[in-house]
Amino acid sequence: MVDSINLDTAKELIDAAERKAEEIDNPMVITVANSEGNLIAQHRMDDAWLASVSISRNKAYTAAALDMPTHELAEPSQPGNSLYGLQTTDDSRIVIFGGGYPLMDGGENVIGAFGVSGGAVEQDMEVAEEGVQRWEELRG
Amino acid sequence: MVDSINLDTAKELIDAAERKAEEIDNPMVITVANSEGNLIAQHRMDDAWLASVSISRNKAYTAAALDMPTHELAEPSQPGNSLYGLQTTDDSRIVIFGGGYPLMDGGENVIGAFGVSGGAVEQDMEVAEEGVQRWEELRG
Amino acid sequence: MVDSINLDTAKELIDAAERKAEEIDNPMVITVANSEGNLIAQHRMDDAWLASVSISRNKAYTAAALDMPTHELAEPSQPGNSLYGLQTTDDSRIVIFGGGYPLMDGGENVIGAFGVSGGAVEQDMEVAEEGVQRWEELRG
Amino acid sequence: MVDSINLDTAKELIDAAERKAEEIDNPMVITVANSEGNLIAQHRMDDAWLASVSISRNKAYTAAALDMPTHELAEPSQPGNSLYGLQTTDDSRIVIFGGGYPLMDGGENVIGAFGVSGGAVEQDMEVAEEGVQRWEELRG
Repeated sequence: MVDSINLDTAKELIDAAERKAEEIDNPMVITVANSEGNLIAQHRMDDAWLASVSISRNKAYTAAALDMPTHELAEPSQPGNSLYGLQTTDDSRIVIFGGGYPLMDGGENVIGAFGVSGGAVEQDMEVAEEGVQRWEELRG
Repeated sequence: MVDSINLDTAKELIDAAERKAEEIDNPMVITVANSEGNLIAQHRMDDAWLASVSISRNKAYTAAALDMPTHELAEPSQPGNSLYGLQTTDDSRIVIFGGGYPLMDGGENVIGAFGVSGGAVEQDMEVAEEGVQRWEELRG
Repeated sequence: MVDSINLDTAKELIDAAERKAEEIDNPMVITVANSEGNLIAQHRMDDAWLASVSISRNKAYTAAALDMPTHELAEPSQPGNSLYGLQTTDDSRIVIFGGGYPLMDGGENVIGAFGVSGGAVEQDMEVAEEGVQRWEELRG
Repeated sequence: MVDSINLDTAKELIDAAERKAEEIDNPMVITVANSEGNLIAQHRMDDAWLASVSISRNKAYTAAALDMPTHELAEPSQPGNSLYGLQTTDDSRIVIFGGGYPLMDGGENVIGAFGVSGGAVEQDMEVAEEGVQRWEELRG
């Protein structure tokens, strides 16, 4: 059994992120995965990029699969650095730019992941962080 | 540009199907795709089968890609029949048992698709038909 | 070098098949491949099934890859017969129902292949045979 | 239902690009896709590179999937830039060099995409731009 956030919570996190995406007028695809990287919920906002369906899902997957936000992978996977080549491992599901975040229980355990794609990386991160923040509020 | 049901409508259809799934006490994974088989929204109900994430997505894909409900493919793809072997075509995304339905525009055009997986085929179909019926109500 | 029909010829074969598809009022996806199964030309007629994009390409591939029409594979790949399981070999590109044909030089050499998908198998075959016949006329 | 350019239009765009490719004596593979990145038509000119069959298809896919010309992706996906790693996302269908263009409806909607591969990137772009220009003439 995976100790994971449930579908109702996932929908709340997605709603929070969608509101942010509407506020900045940038439609996004938003995914919540469980701690094993498998999908709980995914929404493609109207007019969001098609490519973002796959990218948001894999950002959530990556955050769960490596227990860290995807933007932390950018630096070590640069040419010359220690993890150069990382993005083609794991059947190329690893995304090495920002927009994917693990969702933590109050301690050190990952119990889900959040992935957003649809704009520039900073916008993806801004929208994703709304979902993460909502999670931290709900977790109490 | 795809003339398709939007995300708000997709969420309503999924909600209708989820209520049915709760009523029959069988958690399901439910997918809405657009007319080209690409994802609009997907929800995995708590405790639904992991395999159903892929199966419900591919049922929706199949209904869009062949313009027909997936249960209509079961008979022609039996051994000895004309489409035997169909399920491994199209990168094995074709599902040949029930639970995938095209969503029509009132005339002859497919404008989306609905896919449900998580139980016996009859249960998948029963739950999916709630979503399809809700679509027909909304379409007016 | 592959001794193959050229693009101009491929377009003529496709045109002949498209006329037949219009005559029987069934939009099709039509592919011409070279003798190595690689694409020369592909057309998706308006409103043809999305799944047929992949299926027509793989019918042409199969006819080139096995030097025979795809409908000849149906019988040997039935359960209990000698090639049972064939359709999942070769990365699942092998199609075991009708609609794919090799294009022969005047003798025994395959110099291309033709694949049609979009209707019932008999219709796919009827339309594909127009292309094959056009090839035989052009070859003289 | 996809609001898309039809097959007849697609063939006209390809013809315009083929004439340009002949003029510069560089055989190309040319693809037209719909707004969801799925194929409408593809031609491989005689002696065009085999690799270009996949590359032109994926250039058209990328332009549809990200609503922008593929050459605009080159800079942001360089090492050190924000989208480094982009080309291996979305099942490695994303092409990050020039030759793919969205086809617009006159306003802000993408209704198709055009992809060319077979030469140096500047040549691919030059040939593709003929197809895009022909589209703008036809659209009126």
